Amino acid sequence: MISELGEFGLISRFRRPIKTDSSVIKGSGDDCAVIKFDRKGYLLFTCDMITQGVDFLPGDDPYLIGKKAVNISISDIAACGGKPRYCLIALGLPKKAALTYIDRLAKGFFEACGKYKINIAGGDVSSADKLTIDVSMLGVVKKKDLVLRGGAKPGDIIFVTGSLGGSIRGKHLKFGPRLKEAQFLAENFKPTAMIDISDGLTQDLGHIMEESRAGAVIYEELIPLSAQARNLSEALYMGEDFELLFTLSPQEAKRLALKRLSVYKPIGQIMNKGYGLKIIERSGKEKPVKPRGFRHF
Amino acid sequence: MISELGEFGLISRFRRPIKTDSSVIKGSGDDCAVIKFDRKGYLLFTCDMITQGVDFLPGDDPYLIGKKAVNISISDIAACGGKPRYCLIALGLPKKAALTYIDRLAKGFFEACGKYKINIAGGDVSSADKLTIDVSMLGVVKKKDLVLRGGAKPGDIIFVTGSLGGSIRGKHLKFGPRLKEAQFLAENFKPTAMIDISDGLTQDLGHIMEESRAGAVIYEELIPLSAQARNLSEALYMGEDFELLFTLSPQEAKRLALKRLSVYKPIGQIMNKGYGLKIIERSGKEKPVKPRGFRHF
Repeated sequence: MISELGEFGLISRFRRPIKTDSSVIKGSGDDCAVIKFDRKGYLLFTCDMITQGVDFLPGDDPYLIGKKAVNISISDIAACGGKPRYCLIALGLPKKAALTYIDRLAKGFFEACGKYKINIAGGDVSSADKLTIDVSMLGVVKKKDLVLRGGAKPGDIIFVTGSLGGSIRGKHLKFGPRLKEAQFLAENFKPTAMIDISDGLTQDLGHIMEESRAGAVIYEELIPLSAQARNLSEALYMGEDFELLFTLSPQEAKRLALKRLSVYKPIGQIMNKGYGLKIIERSGKEKPVKPRGFRHF
Repeated sequence: MISELGEFGLISRFRRPIKTDSSVIKGSGDDCAVIKFDRKGYLLFTCDMITQGVDFLPGDDPYLIGKKAVNISISDIAACGGKPRYCLIALGLPKKAALTYIDRLAKGFFEACGKYKINIAGGDVSSADKLTIDVSMLGVVKKKDLVLRGGAKPGDIIFVTGSLGGSIRGKHLKFGPRLKEAQFLAENFKPTAMIDISDGLTQDLGHIMEESRAGAVIYEELIPLSAQARNLSEALYMGEDFELLFTLSPQEAKRLALKRLSVYKPIGQIMNKGYGLKIIERSGKEKPVKPRGFRHF
């Protein structure tokens, strides 16, 4: 059974035999696939499937579900430093869905795409027992603006946007993807690594650590808790914040700090791989942390 | 409820408010979305979602299910005259799926992609009650080779590849997409319209008629029945043949006929819009036909 492997065991089982040609700059293992495009830029290609009962509940507003489905993929494109341009929406719809329900769902798709000038280029509709939505999205990124998970170096400063935790109590359906903030960073700073926090802070920091072959230290007192978060654990281990987690060299971090933009908050530093992941508690005590967060299996 | 609208009512309800910018050569309403790429070519972008209980059954071989999921999207790219290049696989997996099941599913993905040199650029895995697979695929097509549904003209000859009907009794899981045949046509002839038969001959011919604003006549005695088809109705109205349906000007049709390639078979002719769709029975009787086939709702 899948539970023996866990979600990431499962993913690596799928990833192992995959071979790609030289036009694939980065395949599976980042927020988007990165594909050669033209002299100046790359294509970004990503998809996210959400299902009733896992990512939203039967009683949730379909307008918000539609927006979420699109915004998740926008967040992935943003985390690579790119601009979303085109999407396809594959929809598995229960036969007894009401037309008013479908219209509100569509309104969510249209508004989220319209806000960021994303072309809905097509889609697919089929019947399903439970509402299932897979949005696949194409974006573009200038070569010089591309940010992946694998470039963080010991000494780099770790930042997050916004605040973390308690997303399950509302924000997961209402977040705005950090597209503007990510583009500002990609164009004006040189983030060494970036990811959107979909699985939870420690798990997504773990992805940066793994791809960058590095360790990390974070400071409890620096972690910005959202108003919905009940405690630190929710900020560390709960998913769907959809904030950006990124790293800057000390020089770039200083330059960002001088801008006094409250949305970007330093929370720690990249360390050597052997250090692992540790949190410095308010008392000053250093505590090892195992990266974990939301897992499907 | 959706059933009041039907599948195509539902799709047009979704399509109506969609606006796209000038980089979208063709949005929803064809086998693929067509997007500006470079001086010589376009990007083709398509997705297809399949779900247990609708597109395959619990007892079906997961290896064949994996192949089918990929081959459906290849068939869409082929129908536009293009070459498939990249795909993402979004997977909704039941938590209690066995590892051997997942491995065979993955083997199906890898083999189908490997055969046509398609890069699996990434994907998404989440938990779901029933196995759900959405493959989104990117292809490329030379501008001069692009074939859409909308270019058929009265007098054009209608062709199909292979044979039709009874796909439900096996072929729907084992078909090979007609990529080679479609590329041969796109490169050497000038098909005025092309589509893959996923919904059934009359329904997909109806799509060509609608997009081309034309009518059509087909001849019963010319329709190639597959060995699995029990009767003509199955060839006319049953889905998932995944054969090509295309039209050629009379001159090009003659040129193709001279090649004596048995895979391409003429079955009728494009007529004026007012003619509608008719079938000439073996007796010579002309019978009006309503385009219909597989519908999800």
